[in-house]
Formats: sequence, C-alpha cells, structure tokens
Amino acid sequence: METSQRIQKMGEPALLKYYPLVSEAQKKGKKVYFLNIGQPDIKTPAGFLKSVNCIEQEVLSYQAPEGITELREAACDYYQRLGLDYDSSDLFVTNGGSEALLFTFIGICNAGDEILTAEPLYSIYKEMAAATDVTLVGFKTYAEDGFALPDVSVIEAAITPRTKAILMTNPGNPTGKVFSKAEIEVLVKLAIKHNLYLISDEVYREFVYDNQGYLSPAQYLELSQNFILIDSISKRYSACGARIGFIVSKNKELMGQLKKLVQMRLSVSTVDQIGAISLLKLDSHFFDGILKEYTSRREIVYQALQEIPGVICKEPRGAFYFMAKLPIKNASHFIEWMINEFEYQGETVLLSPANDFYLNPKDGADEVRIAYVLNGDDMKTSMEILKHGLEAYALAFPKQCK
Amino acid sequence: METSQRIQKMGEPALLKYYPLVSEAQKKGKKVYFLNIGQPDIKTPAGFLKSVNCIEQEVLSYQAPEGITELREAACDYYQRLGLDYDSSDLFVTNGGSEALLFTFIGICNAGDEILTAEPLYSIYKEMAAATDVTLVGFKTYAEDGFALPDVSVIEAAITPRTKAILMTNPGNPTGKVFSKAEIEVLVKLAIKHNLYLISDEVYREFVYDNQGYLSPAQYLELSQNFILIDSISKRYSACGARIGFIVSKNKELMGQLKKLVQMRLSVSTVDQIGAISLLKLDSHFFDGILKEYTSRREIVYQALQEIPGVICKEPRGAFYFMAKLPIKNASHFIEWMINEFEYQGETVLLSPANDFYLNPKDGADEVRIAYVLNGDDMKTSMEILKHGLEAYALAFPKQCK
Repeated sequence: METSQRIQKMGEPALLKYYPLVSEAQKKGKKVYFLNIGQPDIKTPAGFLKSVNCIEQEVLSYQAPEGITELREAACDYYQRLGLDYDSSDLFVTNGGSEALLFTFIGICNAGDEILTAEPLYSIYKEMAAATDVTLVGFKTYAEDGFALPDVSVIEAAITPRTKAILMTNPGNPTGKVFSKAEIEVLVKLAIKHNLYLISDEVYREFVYDNQGYLSPAQYLELSQNFILIDSISKRYSACGARIGFIVSKNKELMGQLKKLVQMRLSVSTVDQIGAISLLKLDSHFFDGILKEYTSRREIVYQALQEIPGVICKEPRGAFYFMAKLPIKNASHFIEWMINEFEYQGETVLLSPANDFYLNPKDGADEVRIAYVLNGDDMKTSMEILKHGLEAYALAFPKQCK
Repeated sequence: METSQRIQKMGEPALLKYYPLVSEAQKKGKKVYFLNIGQPDIKTPAGFLKSVNCIEQEVLSYQAPEGITELREAACDYYQRLGLDYDSSDLFVTNGGSEALLFTFIGICNAGDEILTAEPLYSIYKEMAAATDVTLVGFKTYAEDGFALPDVSVIEAAITPRTKAILMTNPGNPTGKVFSKAEIEVLVKLAIKHNLYLISDEVYREFVYDNQGYLSPAQYLELSQNFILIDSISKRYSACGARIGFIVSKNKELMGQLKKLVQMRLSVSTVDQIGAISLLKLDSHFFDGILKEYTSRREIVYQALQEIPGVICKEPRGAFYFMAKLPIKNASHFIEWMINEFEYQGETVLLSPANDFYLNPKDGADEVRIAYVLNGDDMKTSMEILKHGLEAYALAFPKQCK
C-alpha cells in the first residue's frame, strides 16, 4: 500500500529520533540528561491544576472552535500588558503553537507556494511544510556573528512570485537569536513592499536576556494586515503538556478563512483551556524569577563551553538553546555514540544534531543544539560529561575529529 | 492579502454557522434546544475528572508523540474486548478523531488524489479534504431504503487511478446507517481488489440498536494491510471536550510514515490522556444504560416524526441522528426562520440543514439532521416545537412548502 509523497518527504525530527536508543541505555542503568528538547524542568504554576480541579462540568462538552471566551480575553489582557492591542476576535485558541503554524501554512499557501525563513530554523517547520506541500526557502545566518540577518538584498533575492510569507522565530530556536529593532524593520518593510505575510513565532517571547527588552513586528501598525502572530503557553509557563497555542491577526479576511480550520477540528481540550486561563492571568512579574534562573543556566553552559577546546559558540541572547560547533565532523555520529557507548560516572547527555535545523542535511554537520532546560547543577554535570565525551571520542575516532 | 485556494474551498460547517443567530435569539430570552450537533447531555463518567484530580506532576510535560503508553494499552484492552487484536504499536493517540482523519488524508493522498465515500456524509470530511487538497468522490445512498449501499458496480464505477481509499462511517453520521455483514464484505473485497485503503470511522461503534451487534472491517484479517480505523472517545463516553482520538492500523509501513505527523505536533494533551485512561478501562457493561437511554430517545423522536404530516424518515439503526425529509423546499431557510422568527411558548429548536452533508450543496435541500442528544422530555418538547414550527412556516411561506 502506498503512502503519499508529502508524508515521505517529511523527516523524523532528530530531537525525537534517539529515544529508542535512550531507552536501551536507560535499561542498562545509564542516567541520561535530556538536553535535546525544549522541555523545561521549571514547575508549571500551581494555578493550572488548581483551576482544573475546580471543574464542575458534569458533561465535558465541546467548546467553541475559536476557544473559550474567557481564555481569549485573558490572552488579550496578556497582550495588552505587552503593549499590544488585540481583542478576542483577533485570535483563535489552537492545539499548541504547532497547530497554529499548521493552519497558517494551509491558510495562506497553495501547494507549491513558498515561505522564506532564516536558517538554522526550528526543524519542525520543515515537517509542517512537507505535510502541507509548502516549499520552505532559507537564507543562511551564522553562529560567528550571532545569527544576524544577512543584507536585505540577500533576503530579497530569495523572494519569488510564489513566496507568500516570511517566517521569523523571535527569540530564535535553535539559535537563541533576538532580532534587533533594525532587523525587525527590515522584515516589516520587506513584507509590505512585496505584499507578503510576516509570520512571527514568539513562543519564547519572555526568554530575552541582558535587558534587551521585547520587540515584535506586532508593534508596527502599518503591518497589521500582513502580520500573523504564533504563540503558545508551553515554554513561558512550562506547560508543554497542555496543548494551548494561539493564532493572532488583525486581518479579518484571513481570520474569517482560518476560522474554517478551527471549525474543522471542532474544539481544543476543555480542561487545558480552563487551566490556561489561570496562567495567562499571572502578572508579568511571575516570570522574573524564571528569567533569573535561565540567565544563570545560560552563564553556566557558556562558561563550560568556553573551556572545552575547539568549541565555537556565541552567548545566545534569548530562548534557552545554544547552537555550538564542536571539534568533530559528524554530530549525529557523536550523539549516538554518547548514548550507546559512552558514559561518565554512569551518566551521559542527549543533544540534538544541528543538521536537522537546516534545509540541506549536509549543513551543520559539526554543530549541536544544547537546550539549557535543566537546573544549574544538572547543567554543570552535563557540560562535564560533554567535555569528557569529546575527549574520549577524539581518542576513539581521531579521523572524525577536527 | 491573499489566502489559499484550498482554504477558500472549505466551507463553514452548517452545524456551527447558526451560532451567531442563536446568540441573538438567546439574548432576547428565547430558549433554544440544540439538535444541530452531536453533543450529548449524558454525564461524562466521573473517573475522568477523578483521574485528572490525582495528577501530581509538578511539570506538565510533553508526552510521547504516539501517546502515553498506559492509554495506548488501555485502548488495546478495549479493542480486545471487542474481539480485535491490536497491540500498542498499532495505534497512535490523536487530538480527537478529527486529527486522526486529517493525518490519514495527508498520509495516504497526494494533492489531487481521491477518496470515495457514501453520501450523505459527515460534513467535516469535506472540509478536511479541501484543507488537504484531496478530492472526495461520492456515491449516493437514500433515506428511502435506509441508506443501503448501492450495487457494487456503482461504487466500482467511481474508482479512478487517483482513488486512494474508501472512507466509511459505521454507524453513520448523519444517516444512522449500520452496515450489514454483506455490505462490509463488499467494501472489504473492493478495497483488496483495487488496492485501496479502507478507512472506517467508528466513533459511534457502541450506538447500535435492535441487537444487531457490532461488525467492523477490522475483523477481516485479509484486509489488515489496507485497513485504517479512526476512533474517538468523544461520543462513547460523552467526552467531546476531551480531545482524544486514535488512528489504528496493522500496516507497519503506514504507521511508520504517520508517526512523522504525530511527531510534527509533538504531543496530545497530558491531562486529557490521563483522564481518558480511566474511560477506556470501564467495562463493556458501562454502556448498557446509555444504549437504553438512546433507544428510548430514538423511539420518542421516531414516533413524533411519524405524526408530523409530510415528514419522511426511516428509523435509524445506529449513532444518534435522524436524517429526515421535511415538507419544505429549503431547509436552511426554515432553520434560520425557526431561530430568528419563530417561537413556541418562548422556545425553539436548532437543526442542521442536510445539504451540508452532500458534496453538491443543491442535494438534500429538503432534509435536516436531528441529533437526539437531549433527554427524553427535551426531545419530546423539541419535536412539539418542530411540529408547530412547520405549521407556522406553511402559513408564512406557502410557496416554500410542498
């Protein structure tokens, strides 16, 4: 029996594909630190389960496809606190940021249309594009200059008659890049000039270090008809298991069309929506302690990486990932070896190979993504393990090393 | 700004589109009985919220994309009780049956491929097909003979080189049709002969009346590589607001491909999955009382409809819908009028226009779908209102009546 070409084009995200190997390693008693996926160890605010425990509905019924009104209003209040003026007709609740992206791709692109984005990119964009017959077109950014946007002419050269949108991730996953005001204005102007949507995936919005402040294309009113905001509570509130995201736009025609997609799947989880209301009502200071914690973790990882010979990386300005070049030739091979063969005091680490974050799988062969989602002590230990792992790997596979 | 042709091809499901009118009517103090949507009033088993209230996870984390192991195992035990031999590698947990269908369409069809199904059909299949660039091809079935399958030659004539699957809904929504053994064998043989998938949407599996028993193509082992089962806990456990469905197949190659789609959206709601485990562990007798209740509701509606002059319908054999021909020319007009203009003792009913359940919107103009999802008293009252509504409509719009 045949399967479709579009599903065959999809890949298995590298951040998930090692789990069978990991299970084997764990069965042998090896402890594995998971630095491969953005699953924070921060406690989910207690309000979530408290609200859920107060549910008295005898019939757990469908909710409106657009989302529960109170949740949509709580989201608007949250945006208001950020200085963004959205009302509840400007947003739909989605099954995580993932569904918001999937629906955006379907809603703005015909099969064969193109979306332009910076590389390295969040690997799952590639799978969504394949699933929806959209062609992702990349322009490269580089660790060496902190993943700065290339000159506008480079981006503009990649725009074709089939380009429908520019997709930006701010702060960036996997890069930790935070776009400057000048860079955002380049993209805003490009979108308007070429009549493209600008899709801004801001699920890491609060994870911005060094007092840079938060800036979004949402603040440019002249862009409002071209602008689509993708959001999720997963990272901000450490609630990845509650599948609550948002798709937000002031373009009424677009929202009228996207409404058909939310209707198509009838409803988002009632319980998760009720839990999420309490999260969105938390005041903006709730994040202060979390940001302090992540700032400290980032420091720990940065210091540790600086001390490992041959590692190249800049300190990320946002999100909770490092993209680091290691002194090796094939990160996938190294990562598998770390799980299958290596251990340091009975422990090892799982990283993400960076080639998954490029459109051409030959790119990024010597890079890894490190998620600093564990507490400071675990991150210190993990970096110690990585250091010893690289040393042992150099002895075992000298030809695989630089 | 343009939107895609595929989203423009989608429609707004009629079962949802009247809600703004209904809100207006309710604001004026009119009580509305909702017979338009399959939202049962049966209590969700208490085990769901009890399990949820026992959650002690401090971090509400991602679950495996395939679903929580314990839930997948509980589903297998449930299938075992039905005489179906699935193990947990044969199924993925999905965001409701909706996502199971969407992923199936993407996974087996390229843009332009065809899926064959009986009309009238569940209206949302049309929207899923449009969203995924799949062409739905219908063969008609008729209320007059209880929506029996047409002769095999009729179905076979609709198969083209682009046909990838036959999609059946058993029991049927909106028809209430339950496929006979002979009919199922026709479809099983056709699928094998033409190397097609047979997709069986069985979310109403337990809603089978008159002791007919449950029969699924899943019981035909020779079909196992062609067979895809779509399932959901929504109707069976009156848990529509918990978005838990399943996609089930013994075809390992297909499941290997579909795995990429579940990975693409990372996870299904943790809380809903934990709640669902308790539901799937309920023994098969839990449904006895519910079936009795629905049998009684079906009787009430059937008797009432028989007594309204000009109404044509057979008693449905499964699910909880009547497809009824009314003595009117335009059901959409009648339904809107019932909400906007009509009331009987301060109350009215909301029905679904049946043209939404056909591929050609000109079909089914004089038909409505009535969901008997309310208690007996409410169903009696609703039928009373419908009767008075038809009488008043005949006086107000004699030319719109037959």
